[in-house]
Amino acid sequence: MFVLVNLKTYPCDPVEVAEAVRDVNDATDARLAVAPQAAHIERVAETGAETWAQHVDAIEHGSNTGHALAESVADAGAVGTLINHSERRLKLADIDGAVRAAERADLETVVCANNPAQIGAAAALGPDAVAVEPPALIGTGTPVSQADPDVVENAVEAAANVDPTVSVLCGAGISTGDDVVAAGDLGAEGVLLASGVAKADDPQSALEDLVEPL
Amino acid sequence: MFVLVNLKTYPCDPVEVAEAVRDVNDATDARLAVAPQAAHIERVAETGAETWAQHVDAIEHGSNTGHALAESVADAGAVGTLINHSERRLKLADIDGAVRAAERADLETVVCANNPAQIGAAAALGPDAVAVEPPALIGTGTPVSQADPDVVENAVEAAANVDPTVSVLCGAGISTGDDVVAAGDLGAEGVLLASGVAKADDPQSALEDLVEPL
Amino acid sequence: MFVLVNLKTYPCDPVEVAEAVRDVNDATDARLAVAPQAAHIERVAETGAETWAQHVDAIEHGSNTGHALAESVADAGAVGTLINHSERRLKLADIDGAVRAAERADLETVVCANNPAQIGAAAALGPDAVAVEPPALIGTGTPVSQADPDVVENAVEAAANVDPTVSVLCGAGISTGDDVVAAGDLGAEGVLLASGVAKADDPQSALEDLVEPL
Amino acid sequence: MFVLVNLKTYPCDPVEVAEAVRDVNDATDARLAVAPQAAHIERVAETGAETWAQHVDAIEHGSNTGHALAESVADAGAVGTLINHSERRLKLADIDGAVRAAERADLETVVCANNPAQIGAAAALGPDAVAVEPPALIGTGTPVSQADPDVVENAVEAAANVDPTVSVLCGAGISTGDDVVAAGDLGAEGVLLASGVAKADDPQSALEDLVEPL
Repeated sequence: MFVLVNLKTYPCDPVEVAEAVRDVNDATDARLAVAPQAAHIERVAETGAETWAQHVDAIEHGSNTGHALAESVADAGAVGTLINHSERRLKLADIDGAVRAAERADLETVVCANNPAQIGAAAALGPDAVAVEPPALIGTGTPVSQADPDVVENAVEAAANVDPTVSVLCGAGISTGDDVVAAGDLGAEGVLLASGVAKADDPQSALEDLVEPL
Repeated sequence: MFVLVNLKTYPCDPVEVAEAVRDVNDATDARLAVAPQAAHIERVAETGAETWAQHVDAIEHGSNTGHALAESVADAGAVGTLINHSERRLKLADIDGAVRAAERADLETVVCANNPAQIGAAAALGPDAVAVEPPALIGTGTPVSQADPDVVENAVEAAANVDPTVSVLCGAGISTGDDVVAAGDLGAEGVLLASGVAKADDPQSALEDLVEPL
Repeated sequence: MFVLVNLKTYPCDPVEVAEAVRDVNDATDARLAVAPQAAHIERVAETGAETWAQHVDAIEHGSNTGHALAESVADAGAVGTLINHSERRLKLADIDGAVRAAERADLETVVCANNPAQIGAAAALGPDAVAVEPPALIGTGTPVSQADPDVVENAVEAAANVDPTVSVLCGAGISTGDDVVAAGDLGAEGVLLASGVAKADDPQSALEDLVEPL
Repeated sequence: MFVLVNLKTYPCDPVEVAEAVRDVNDATDARLAVAPQAAHIERVAETGAETWAQHVDAIEHGSNTGHALAESVADAGAVGTLINHSERRLKLADIDGAVRAAERADLETVVCANNPAQIGAAAALGPDAVAVEPPALIGTGTPVSQADPDVVENAVEAAANVDPTVSVLCGAGISTGDDVVAAGDLGAEGVLLASGVAKADDPQSALEDLVEPL
């Protein structure tokens, strides 16, 4: 299972979480990565943790003040990027453009979407993976894998129908190892996590609990 | 073939074009419709021409000042709507929401997109049809069916791969009957037109020429 | 006092409300107007009520599918337009462009904003009026003129500091004649109303109550 | 004069330009700063050059995936930020929110705008400075201070009318020391530069030429 910890703009220490991600990754079979804010990518990547961007724009080198260039986040140390997170929704043409930009910079891509129909749409754009996150469950502590198992199974089916080479992750409300196991049982190859780790008093312990049942 | 005449915000008389659309529709086997601005839907529908909206928003009845509600454009006389035209690009989640809104109001849907990958994505959202319009050709007078026939064939294939019940239209630069025939030969079931008719001195004559070879 | 009834995308009959607006306008000293959805402007204007658009875009005649052209809403019967309502917020450059577009089409303009600082900014763009509507109070039934009188007075002062020829309206939660009187006492020359009239069982009676103390 | 070098998403080495900015700043009376991409702020700030962000969002700590938090760019080393650059235009309410966010994080603010009316609007939001950049001149090499001197003078007047404590910068097409002097003569207290330095073969020499006449 792939466990991607999204730090959003939480007031956590990104380096502390990154070191926990790195150590738990090294100690287990799960693959863990961390997605800090753009301005923190460099210091997070220096910890040795697998580092992702939270967003890249559908742009190339040029006159694009205030945008996130795939090459620059890669240069700072990111190896992958979220695209179209529900807190940073993009136009369809720009999701397409952001996936192409990420490919150009050798960034792995996870395109997020709200429901199975949108997951099918995201898969049609050829990312490495898609992630289904029902907006109503984000940040609730109610895991999508329990509250709405159908949405995960239907997302897996929708992606497979469009492009069976695209992996499916799921997110929203996931905070325990049982949630991660349940996600895997529904066909997900990974999970997106955020507050459960980023807001934990002890992120390393939270991550250890999370991957323990895997 | 379905011929949809998009009036954009051109300085034409929408009623004059609508009457031409109605008359040519009645005189031929082709199906013709016209998409005026929202404020002109009512007067256009009163001509008896098949009337479409240019856009609807991903909203329901409620507190949405300045938005286009599917029920209201239907109430004014529209029977279908474009969604995500390249001049009115939407977020992926909002294309999904707009298709759902249009279904709720019994509006036929055509979701526009720029290239075959995005056409596959649009088809995954379950509209009645998708329309591929390479932005670089819009308004050029160079028809997509000649300048870039692969994009039409690949769009037809991309849509069929995702959902074979979704029709494919094409647009950009189409202004003659030969262009329309060429589009049909590439697998398109209709075309989007704009300046070729809306800016013509004699819209009726332009439409007659257009459907003559069909 | 100017009383502008914004119908948003409420499920009311726009013609019924427009007739009430027209009749109460004719029977009192207050100036009343109604802002229906774009697709309803024509039928609302035909009632003889003063009709406003809820939004116009920063565009001219041309290739702008799915946008609201000032000339077209004027042509359909609107004599004024809201711009930058909190449910249809615009980029600064587009507020400027929309005010210019509205002027070109002889539409009166009311630019909305959330707080006194933004009201000063809106006034600097030279509209006919600005309207302060604290987002937290919209739709609450708690009138801004009572819940937050300072915001109205400060908005009046902020606009006057920038351009004393710009009128100030206020909105959010206004539903009674006392609310309107209180707004006037704070320096507002008019009010924006919505649900209090649009959702009333008897819009005419609601409007009569509203203007009775004036 | 304040000279702010915006690196946009140009393919330059941000550290090389930053070192030039630092050295020329130290050798002259002018104040120089550099605005790299978010992912490069940390390495640029480590050079000792005054470092600015190109953009911050109207957000606080919380669930804001893919956004630029003022506290985080400050933490990475930025001491100021551009807001509403013409390549990253914001809604009016979000410019206000971004200025408030920057103040909270002790970032100096420059709000950009296209013309004198918008400069007045920007000044009303209480930033430290505003910058007028006519979009038509950006990247042209034709300096605003020569091509359109009225726009600079009118911007200075518009800002002074709203809030005389707000400084005015200008940008677009500035590449020589004479351009900077001309800007100062028109009332500007600084300039925004981009390609003239970022794309120069020798950024340090370009900067030295630029500040030489000051």
